Amino acid sequence: MDSEQFREFGKAAIDLIADYIDNIRKRDVLPSVEPGYLVDVMPENAPEKPEDWKDIIQDFNQMILPGVTHWHSPRFHAFYPTGSSYASIVGNILADGLGVIGFSWMSSPACTELEVVTMNWLGKLLGLPEEFLNCSPGRGGGVIQGSASEATLVGLLVAKDKIVRKLLQDHPSLDDGDIKKKLVAYTSDQCNSSVEKAGLLGAMKMRLLKSDSEGRLRGEMLKKAFDEDIAMGLIPCYVIANLGTTGTCAFDPLYELGPICNEYDVWLHVDAAYAGTAFICPEYRHLMKGVELADSFDFNPHKWMNVNFDCSAMWVKDGHDLIKAFDVQRIYLDDIKTETKIPDYRHWQMPLGRRFRALKLWTVLRIYGAEGLRSHIRNHISLAQHFARLVRTDDRFLVEPEPSMGLVCFRFKQGDNVTKTLLERLTKKKNVYMVAGSYRGRYVIRFVVCSRLTNKDDIEFSWNKIKEEANLISSEEIHIKNNMLKLNHIENLTLCEKSK
Amino acid sequence: MDSEQFREFGKAAIDLIADYIDNIRKRDVLPSVEPGYLVDVMPENAPEKPEDWKDIIQDFNQMILPGVTHWHSPRFHAFYPTGSSYASIVGNILADGLGVIGFSWMSSPACTELEVVTMNWLGKLLGLPEEFLNCSPGRGGGVIQGSASEATLVGLLVAKDKIVRKLLQDHPSLDDGDIKKKLVAYTSDQCNSSVEKAGLLGAMKMRLLKSDSEGRLRGEMLKKAFDEDIAMGLIPCYVIANLGTTGTCAFDPLYELGPICNEYDVWLHVDAAYAGTAFICPEYRHLMKGVELADSFDFNPHKWMNVNFDCSAMWVKDGHDLIKAFDVQRIYLDDIKTETKIPDYRHWQMPLGRRFRALKLWTVLRIYGAEGLRSHIRNHISLAQHFARLVRTDDRFLVEPEPSMGLVCFRFKQGDNVTKTLLERLTKKKNVYMVAGSYRGRYVIRFVVCSRLTNKDDIEFSWNKIKEEANLISSEEIHIKNNMLKLNHIENLTLCEKSK
Repeated sequence: MDSEQFREFGKAAIDLIADYIDNIRKRDVLPSVEPGYLVDVMPENAPEKPEDWKDIIQDFNQMILPGVTHWHSPRFHAFYPTGSSYASIVGNILADGLGVIGFSWMSSPACTELEVVTMNWLGKLLGLPEEFLNCSPGRGGGVIQGSASEATLVGLLVAKDKIVRKLLQDHPSLDDGDIKKKLVAYTSDQCNSSVEKAGLLGAMKMRLLKSDSEGRLRGEMLKKAFDEDIAMGLIPCYVIANLGTTGTCAFDPLYELGPICNEYDVWLHVDAAYAGTAFICPEYRHLMKGVELADSFDFNPHKWMNVNFDCSAMWVKDGHDLIKAFDVQRIYLDDIKTETKIPDYRHWQMPLGRRFRALKLWTVLRIYGAEGLRSHIRNHISLAQHFARLVRTDDRFLVEPEPSMGLVCFRFKQGDNVTKTLLERLTKKKNVYMVAGSYRGRYVIRFVVCSRLTNKDDIEFSWNKIKEEANLISSEEIHIKNNMLKLNHIENLTLCEKSK
Repeated sequence: MDSEQFREFGKAAIDLIADYIDNIRKRDVLPSVEPGYLVDVMPENAPEKPEDWKDIIQDFNQMILPGVTHWHSPRFHAFYPTGSSYASIVGNILADGLGVIGFSWMSSPACTELEVVTMNWLGKLLGLPEEFLNCSPGRGGGVIQGSASEATLVGLLVAKDKIVRKLLQDHPSLDDGDIKKKLVAYTSDQCNSSVEKAGLLGAMKMRLLKSDSEGRLRGEMLKKAFDEDIAMGLIPCYVIANLGTTGTCAFDPLYELGPICNEYDVWLHVDAAYAGTAFICPEYRHLMKGVELADSFDFNPHKWMNVNFDCSAMWVKDGHDLIKAFDVQRIYLDDIKTETKIPDYRHWQMPLGRRFRALKLWTVLRIYGAEGLRSHIRNHISLAQHFARLVRTDDRFLVEPEPSMGLVCFRFKQGDNVTKTLLERLTKKKNVYMVAGSYRGRYVIRFVVCSRLTNKDDIEFSWNKIKEEANLISSEEIHIKNNMLKLNHIENLTLCEKSK
C-alpha cells in the first residue's frame, strides 16, 4: 500500500467513524450475536495475496460492526465510561504515524518531553499538591501508564522494593525472601478486581478490609489491621485507597488513611481511576482531602476524560523510588546523561517499550480546554441526578446509596429477584445496557452516564425502557397473583363444597 | 469538536502523516534538540478555552516534529525495528473509533473473536505446532499482550503459580512464601533487559547463564544450573529461551533446552520478540526447531511485522494455567457462561482493560497478505547481506559475528576505542543512527535494517556516511602519527645537538 492508497483508505476510515458516531443511536447498544459468530464466518487462514482496502471496509461493516457492544452509545450505562473523542482519535493517528518508541529521551525527545508537559498541565488542572509535579523543585513527577491495574501494581512493586531495601540496610543479616513473605497490602472490600489482582501478580498478601456502611475504608479499621499484623510478625507495606469505588462510587477518606500510613511508614497509593477526572472541577476536590499524604496517585483520563484507552495518569512524590526498583541497564540502552529533570521513562514503568501516548492527551486537553472538560463532567453529573429524579418518581423503586458522580444505583423495593429479572430482561432486549452491583448486601442495578454524547433525551429514553420493562413485570406479577388468588378461591370453594 | 470538524482534522492528520513518510529521507534521522527543548517552549498550563485544530497541526509541525527521532527513516539502524504501516494505522483508527474495551466476550464479542481468528491465522503462518492454537482440539490459544516484556512476566507469574499450586497439593504442610523464595528462573547472559526486569518485577531470582561463543544458551549449561540449584534446595521454575538475542541476534537451541525443561518439569517460554516474524518464511523455521517442547511462545508483530506498537503475540499450550493464575471474579464482571472455546481474555493477561488490538493485526495481514510479509522479511535480510558485503570491501573493518536476520555487527580491526569514536561521531552528525553492542568482549556497532521503506540506495547512503567518517578518522590518525613522528624527529635532533 503506497501513500496515495493510504490517503484514500485513511480518509474512508475517518468518514466511517464519523458516520458511525453520528448514527450510533440507531443501533441496539448490545449486539445480537452468539459466541463463535465471527470465528465461524471468517476464513481459516490469512490471505496469501494482498487484498484491497475496500474489501476490509466492507467486511468491517458486515462482520465486525454487528458484533460490537457500543460503548459510546448514549444507552450504554454499564461499568464506567471508557474514553473516546475525536480529539483523541486524531492524537493517536499522529502518534501511530510517527511510530516512535520512547524508552529513553534520545529515542524520541518529543515523546518524553510532551509527557512531562501534559502531565504537569493535568496535575495542575486536578489541583494535585505541587510535590507530585515534575515542574516543582523535588523529585516528584507524572508518567502515563497503560491502566489503573498497571499503576496499582507499579505502586505495589515499588513499595515492596523500598521497604526491602530499607530493612536490609538496617538489618543486613535478614533474608530478602523472608522479608517479602511477611509484607501485607491493604485495601477495602469495595476495591476493583484489578487491585486484588495486583496483590496476586505482585505476590503480596492483600487484605480486603471491611468498609463502613457507606462503602468507605475508615482509618480506625486500617489502624486495627496494621496492629494485628504487626503483632503477628507481619509487615504492613502498601495501602490502596479508592476514590470512587467500582460498585457504588464511594470515596475513602484520605484524611483518615493518610496520617496512619505516614505514622506506620506505609506506602499510600490512591486509585481514582474513574472519579479522578472530576477533580478538574474545584467543587469536587474536597473528596480528595488528604491527598498530600499519599505517595502515589493514579486516575484514568481514558475513562471519564475522553482520552482513548490506554492513558492512565500516575504521579509519584519521589521518582527515584521507581528508578531504584525498575532500572536494568544495557549497553544498547546507553543514553546521554543529563543534569535536567527529564526522566527516562522506561525506569518509571514495567515494560521497556512505550508509545507516544502524550499526543492524545495533548490533543484532548487543547481541543476541549479546561472549560470544555469541566462542562463535560458537570453535564454527566447533572444527567445522573436527572435520572435519579426520574427513578424516584416511581415508588416501586429505591435509589440507594445517594448518586455519586455519574453513577446511580437503584433497585425494586420488592426484592432482589425482581431487580435481577428486570436487569436480565433489559439486557436480553439489548436497548439499554447496565450491570449489577451490590449495596448493603442488596442486589442493585448500576446506571452510569457513560457516553460523551448523552443528553437529557437519552436519559429519558433509557428510563422509559426501564419503566416499560418494570411495568411488564408488575402486570405479569399482578396476573400471577390474580391467578393465584383465583386458584385459592377455587380451592376454598372446593373445600367448602367438600365440608358441606 | 463535532463530526464535521473531525472529518477535516482527521483527514488533515492523514495527509500530514502521508507527507511525513513521503519526505522522511529529507530529515536527519536524529533531532537537533537539547534536553528540555520542549518543556521550555510549551505553555505552563493547559489552555482554559477550547482551541482550534489547525493550531494543533501547526504546533505539531513546529514543536513536536523537530524533537522526533525518526524510527521509520531508512537511515535508522538502531535497536531493532518498531513496526508501523499504513495498514496498521488505519486498523487503529477503526479500533479507536469503536473505542471498546474487550475484557469479556460480552463487552464486545467482535473484539475477542477477531483476536482468536487473527491469532490462529498468525500461528499458522509461523508454522507453530497445532497445540498452541485455539483452533486445535486442546486448551492452547493465542492472546495479544502489550509487549514482550509483559509476555515474559506473564509466563513467569503463571509458571510460579503453577509450581506453587502443585507443591502445595503434594505437600499441604508447606508454606506458600517458603516455596516462592526458592524458585529460580534462567536465561542467557544475552537476554534483553526486559527479561531480567521480569525477574525483578515477578520477584524471582533470575540467573543469567553464560552463553557459548556464539551467544547461545546451551542445554548442558542449563542442566548444570538446574542440578546446582536443586542441590542447594532451590526449585527451578522458569526458563526464557531467546530466539534472536538483542545483542547479536543469536538463537538458543530449543531442541537442547526443551528436553531438559520437560525432564525437570520447568516452564519453557520462548522470547522471539524480533526474529519471530521471520518464521513466516519456511526457510527460517529450522531456527525454532524444538518449539513443540515449549509451554509459551511470544513474538512482536509490532517489531518486524509492520504492526504498530503495541501488539505482542503470545501463545500458550494450556490457557487454563493462565486463568488459574489471573482470575479474580466480581459481580459487575459476571458474564454469560459458554461452552465454546471463546476465551475471556482478561484472565489471559495482567490488566483488566484491553483495546481492540486485533483490528490492526487484521488490516496488516490482509493488506500485505502472507506473500507481502514474506517479501518484506526477505528483502530486509538481503539488504543486511548487502550491507555486510559493503563493509567487507573495506579491510579496515571486520563483520563479526556472521550477520543474522536484519542485523550486521561490525567494528574497526584497530580496536574498540576507534570503533566507539566512529559511532559517537556519526551519532553527533545525526544522518545515520546505530547503537553499540558487544561480541566476545569487543565493542561492536549494531547496524539493523529497520524501516519498511529501506532500499539498496538507502543502505549505500548509510554505508557511505560510515565510510566518510571512517576516512576522516583514519586521516586524522595519520596526521597525528605524522605529527608525532615529526615531534620525535625534532626531539631527537635536539638531543643530538645537546649531546654534541
